[in-house]
Amino acid sequence: AYTQQTDTLPFPNINSKWYESISIGGYVQARYNRLLETNPDLECSQCDASWGEGGGFSLRRVRIKLSGNIGKHVYFYIQPDFASSSAGPGLHYGQLRDAYMDVSIDQNREFRFRIGQSKVPYGFENMQSSQNRLPLDRNDGMNSAIKNERELGVFFYWAPKEIRSRFSMLTREGLKGSGDYGVVGLGIYNGQTGNATELNNELHVVGRVSYPFKLGKQIIEPGIQAYTGEYQIPLYNISEGTIVNPDLNYIDQRAALTFVLYPQPFGIQAEYNVGRGPEFNKENNTIEETPLKGGYATITYKTIVANQLFYPFIRYQYYDGGKKFERDARSYEVSELEIGIEWRPVKAFEFVAMYTISSRRFEDFQNQNNLQEGRLLRLQAQVNF
Amino acid sequence: AYTQQTDTLPFPNINSKWYESISIGGYVQARYNRLLETNPDLECSQCDASWGEGGGFSLRRVRIKLSGNIGKHVYFYIQPDFASSSAGPGLHYGQLRDAYMDVSIDQNREFRFRIGQSKVPYGFENMQSSQNRLPLDRNDGMNSAIKNERELGVFFYWAPKEIRSRFSMLTREGLKGSGDYGVVGLGIYNGQTGNATELNNELHVVGRVSYPFKLGKQIIEPGIQAYTGEYQIPLYNISEGTIVNPDLNYIDQRAALTFVLYPQPFGIQAEYNVGRGPEFNKENNTIEETPLKGGYATITYKTIVANQLFYPFIRYQYYDGGKKFERDARSYEVSELEIGIEWRPVKAFEFVAMYTISSRRFEDFQNQNNLQEGRLLRLQAQVNF
Amino acid sequence: AYTQQTDTLPFPNINSKWYESISIGGYVQARYNRLLETNPDLECSQCDASWGEGGGFSLRRVRIKLSGNIGKHVYFYIQPDFASSSAGPGLHYGQLRDAYMDVSIDQNREFRFRIGQSKVPYGFENMQSSQNRLPLDRNDGMNSAIKNERELGVFFYWAPKEIRSRFSMLTREGLKGSGDYGVVGLGIYNGQTGNATELNNELHVVGRVSYPFKLGKQIIEPGIQAYTGEYQIPLYNISEGTIVNPDLNYIDQRAALTFVLYPQPFGIQAEYNVGRGPEFNKENNTIEETPLKGGYATITYKTIVANQLFYPFIRYQYYDGGKKFERDARSYEVSELEIGIEWRPVKAFEFVAMYTISSRRFEDFQNQNNLQEGRLLRLQAQVNF
Repeated sequence: AYTQQTDTLPFPNINSKWYESISIGGYVQARYNRLLETNPDLECSQCDASWGEGGGFSLRRVRIKLSGNIGKHVYFYIQPDFASSSAGPGLHYGQLRDAYMDVSIDQNREFRFRIGQSKVPYGFENMQSSQNRLPLDRNDGMNSAIKNERELGVFFYWAPKEIRSRFSMLTREGLKGSGDYGVVGLGIYNGQTGNATELNNELHVVGRVSYPFKLGKQIIEPGIQAYTGEYQIPLYNISEGTIVNPDLNYIDQRAALTFVLYPQPFGIQAEYNVGRGPEFNKENNTIEETPLKGGYATITYKTIVANQLFYPFIRYQYYDGGKKFERDARSYEVSELEIGIEWRPVKAFEFVAMYTISSRRFEDFQNQNNLQEGRLLRLQAQVNF
Repeated sequence: AYTQQTDTLPFPNINSKWYESISIGGYVQARYNRLLETNPDLECSQCDASWGEGGGFSLRRVRIKLSGNIGKHVYFYIQPDFASSSAGPGLHYGQLRDAYMDVSIDQNREFRFRIGQSKVPYGFENMQSSQNRLPLDRNDGMNSAIKNERELGVFFYWAPKEIRSRFSMLTREGLKGSGDYGVVGLGIYNGQTGNATELNNELHVVGRVSYPFKLGKQIIEPGIQAYTGEYQIPLYNISEGTIVNPDLNYIDQRAALTFVLYPQPFGIQAEYNVGRGPEFNKENNTIEETPLKGGYATITYKTIVANQLFYPFIRYQYYDGGKKFERDARSYEVSELEIGIEWRPVKAFEFVAMYTISSRRFEDFQNQNNLQEGRLLRLQAQVNF
Repeated sequence: AYTQQTDTLPFPNINSKWYESISIGGYVQARYNRLLETNPDLECSQCDASWGEGGGFSLRRVRIKLSGNIGKHVYFYIQPDFASSSAGPGLHYGQLRDAYMDVSIDQNREFRFRIGQSKVPYGFENMQSSQNRLPLDRNDGMNSAIKNERELGVFFYWAPKEIRSRFSMLTREGLKGSGDYGVVGLGIYNGQTGNATELNNELHVVGRVSYPFKLGKQIIEPGIQAYTGEYQIPLYNISEGTIVNPDLNYIDQRAALTFVLYPQPFGIQAEYNVGRGPEFNKENNTIEETPLKGGYATITYKTIVANQLFYPFIRYQYYDGGKKFERDARSYEVSELEIGIEWRPVKAFEFVAMYTISSRRFEDFQNQNNLQEGRLLRLQAQVNF
C-alpha cells in the first residue's frame, strides 16, 4: 500500500491513504431450487450445481472485489469467488474470477490494455455481472463459449470518455448494463477458459464492436462480436472409450449479434450466435467438430412501487451444440422459458423468484440418452455491499 | 462498493465511503502441541490435526472477516479461513466459514432472517467464537453435532434491542459471550454440515431459546436447544467392507441444555446433550443408528494483574457416540480434563497454555481397537486485529 | 475490528477506525514466456509452471496483503496468493503465503518474536519480495533450500531502530532491499517447507546475521546464514521403484554467504551456499544424501529517464544438487544467464523483459536422462497497489 511515500523516486505521491485508492465491495447469492420441482433429473451443471436431486440451500456466488485507480494510468481489479469447488468433496474454496490491470495510454483512459485474467468481450450477457443480471443463470447459447466468461490474455479496449460515462451510468442506475468493455474490444487469450491450464500452443483471437446509442430518452446498444482459436480437450474430461482427434485439438469459433434496449421502463435484450466446436456424437462415441447455434431474448420491465424496485422479466433461450469444457464435450439441446421477478426493497438486498420451464438434452459417453423435461421454481436472495 | 451514488434509484444514499460501512478484522491462531506429550497416538482430528505423531508448529485458524450494516435493514458477514485443507497434500487454502446476509423486518433489527452459510443455533460453545473461547478446542459432546458449527440454510432470530446490546457487551467486555444468536432462534438447513454438498432431499430443523438474565452484578444465561433431520453418509467416508443402510440415510437428532454464569470474576459454562445418530459398531462392521450423549463443564476466573488479563480455567468433558462426518461415522468415547490459562498482556495478543489429560477411544472399520490415553501440554499464540 | 471500544478491559483504546490500523495492498504478475523459445522442453517447475510446451499467458502471483500495527507491541501480516494450484486441474485458488504475528518486547520493536508462517531468514534473494526482485524467478541455488521461502515456526529478530529505518528505506526508495529480517535472526521451524504438513518429529534451526553498512553515499550489506534439520520425503513425492531411507528422513543443512551493494546507481547482489540434502541418483535409483552447492551474482543499474525508472540487469546462476520437495528429490544441475530490464513508467506499473540462456539437467525416477538447453524471451507485467 502506498502509505509509504518516497522522495527519491521520480513519481508524484499518489494518495497517502490506501483506502481512498483501493475500494472493496462484493455480493453474495444464496439459492434454493427445489420448490414445485417436477423432474429431479433436470439439471444444468454449468448454471447451478444445486439444481435437482439431492440439492438444497446453496451459495451460488460469494464475491469480494478489490479495485482501484492507482495514479492516472493504472487501474486494477481482483475478484475471488468463495463459492468455488476444488478437487475433493469440500465446497466454498476461494478461487479467482478476475485479476487484471488496466494500463491506459492516455490520461482520459480512452485507450486501455487489460492484462491478466478477465472477461472475454464476447456477448453482452456474458459481460454483464451476475450481480445485475435478472435471470439466475446465463443463457447456454452464448455462455457455452467460455466457462466462467474469463480467460488469461491481453485485451485492448477503446471508448470515448462520454461513452465510458454512459456505460458506467447504465450499470449504476439500475438499467442492467454490461459494464465498460469498450466500443471496440480486441484480444488474444489462451482459449482453455479461465482458471484452466493452457494446453496447446495456439492462442485465441477475439474482436467486438458495441455502441450505446441515445434515441431520445431511450438507449439502445447493438453489438457484434466473434472469436476463433483451437481448443484442446483436457484428458480429465475424456471418458475411456470416447474417440477423439489424435492431438485433442478442435476448431473453436463463433460469431454473435447483440441487441439491447435498456429498460426505461421497457427493455429488450437479445443475442444469437453461430459457430463450430467439439461436440460428443453418441452415434459413434466420437468427439467431432460440429456446428452450433443458439441465443436468447429477455423482455424486462422496470418499475418502482412504494420506493422499491421491481423487475418482472421473461426469457426464452435455445442452444444446440457442444460444451467443450464439459465431459466428452457434452452434447446439448436446450429450450427453456423463464418467467420471473426481481424485487429490490432496499439498496443492498435483492430477491428473485423465477419459474423455469425447461427441456434439456445433455449427453456424453457415460450418459447417452438423456433428455430431461420439467418445471421448477427457483429462489435467490442477494446482498450487495 | 457504494462510492457510486445514484439519483434515479428510489433509495437514499447510504454511505459515500465504503470503509465506513464495511469493516475488516480477524485473528490468527498458531499452535504447538508436542511438549510433555506421553502418547503420540493420542489424537483428535476434529479438534486439531497437529496433535500427536509427526505434528509440529501449525496454524489452526487464519480468519479474515468482512462485515457491515448496509442501510437500516441489511447486514452481511463473510469469513474465509486461510488455514483450511483441500484435497491433496497442500495446507492453508482459503475456504468459507461464514457467508450470510441478515435481513431485518424492523429498523431496530430485533427480527432478523439470516440467509446463507452460518452457525447453527445449537450449543453455546459452538456459537462462541474460537477467538473468545478459553479451551483450545470445542468439546466433542456438543461439537460432534455439526462439523465447523455451520450449515447452509435460513435462520430466524429474535431478540429485544436491550438484550441485543447485552449479547454484544458480553463479547466486547471480555466476558467470553457467544455473540448474538437471538433469544429465540429457528432454522432450516441442509444438514450435511458446512462446506459439504447436500445429498438427500431432507432438510434439518433447529430451535433454540436462550436468555441472559441480570442478577445484581451477575449475568446468567440458561438455554435449551434441539434439532432433527436425516444425515446421509457421504460415499467417500465409507470404508470398503463397512455395512450401511441401503439409502445411506440416518436419523440425526439431538437436544441440549446450557447454563452459563459469566465470569465476573468467577464463571461457569456447562452444556449437556443427548440424541441419536449414525455410529460405527466394530462388533458387526456396521454403521448403526445409536444413542449418543455428552457434554462439559468449564470453570473460569477472570482477573487483571498489572494491567494484563488472565483467565485460569478448567474443563471436564465427556462424549459417547458417533461422529457422523468422519470415516464410517467413527465411534467415540471421550473423557478429558483440561487445566489452562489464557494470558492477554495487550489488547491484540493472547497466549494460552493448557495441560490436557485425555482418554479417547475412536474406532472405524480401518482402526478397530483404538483406545488412546495420555497427557500433553498445548500452546497457542493468537493475534486479534 | 476494533471499532468496538471497551471501558472495563485494562487496555487503552487503540484506534477507533479499523482502516487506520489495518492496511491492504498487494500486486499482480502476469506473464508470457513463449517468445523466441528454442526448446519447448526447457522448463523449471519451481520457477514458473508456464515455461515451455503448452504454456501461454499466466498469472504468476496474485497477492493481497493485510497488515498493521495493533498497539505498540503487536504487528500482524497475512498474505494469501490467488495464483496457487490445488489438487485437480483448476488454477488460481487462494492459499496462504504469510500469516504471522510479531510480538515485540520493547516499544521500539527492536526485539521481536515472529510466530506463524513466515519467511525463513536464509538468503537475501529469498527474503526479497518478488514484488521488488529484478529477475523473474529466484535463483535455484539458494531457493532450493525452502520452497515458497516460508515455514511454520517461531523466529526471533533483533535490529536497532536506526537499522530498521534503513531496511525500510532500502525497499521504499526503489533500491530493491530484502525487507527487515533483523541484523540477527534466529528460528526454529517444521522444516517441510511452507503449506506442507510436518512429518517427522524434528524441528529445523536457522540463524542469520546481516548488516547494511553506510560507506559514504553507498550502502553495502554482507550477510551470513545457516540452517540444519531433518527433512522427510513425503510419500506422494516418491515414485514406485525409487529406493529411499527406511524412515524417509534425510539430513538437510546449508550455509550461505551474501554480499549486496545497493544500486546507487550501480548494484551488485551475490550469494553462494553449500550444504547436504537428499538427491535422486539415477545410477542406482536411490534418493541419497549428497552435497549440494550453488549461487548467483546479479549486476544492476538504476536509472531515471524522462521521469521513468529503468533497471537493466544481468544475472548468472549455478546450482548442483537436489530439490528435496520435488519428485524423488529431483537431481539438478543448472547454469543460466539472464539479461533483462525492468521498466517502471509510473509508480503502480512495472514491465520486465528478460532474455534467458539456460542449461538445466533435472532428473527423477520417471525422467532419467534429461538435460535441456535453450533460450527464450520472458515478459512480465506487474501492477502494485
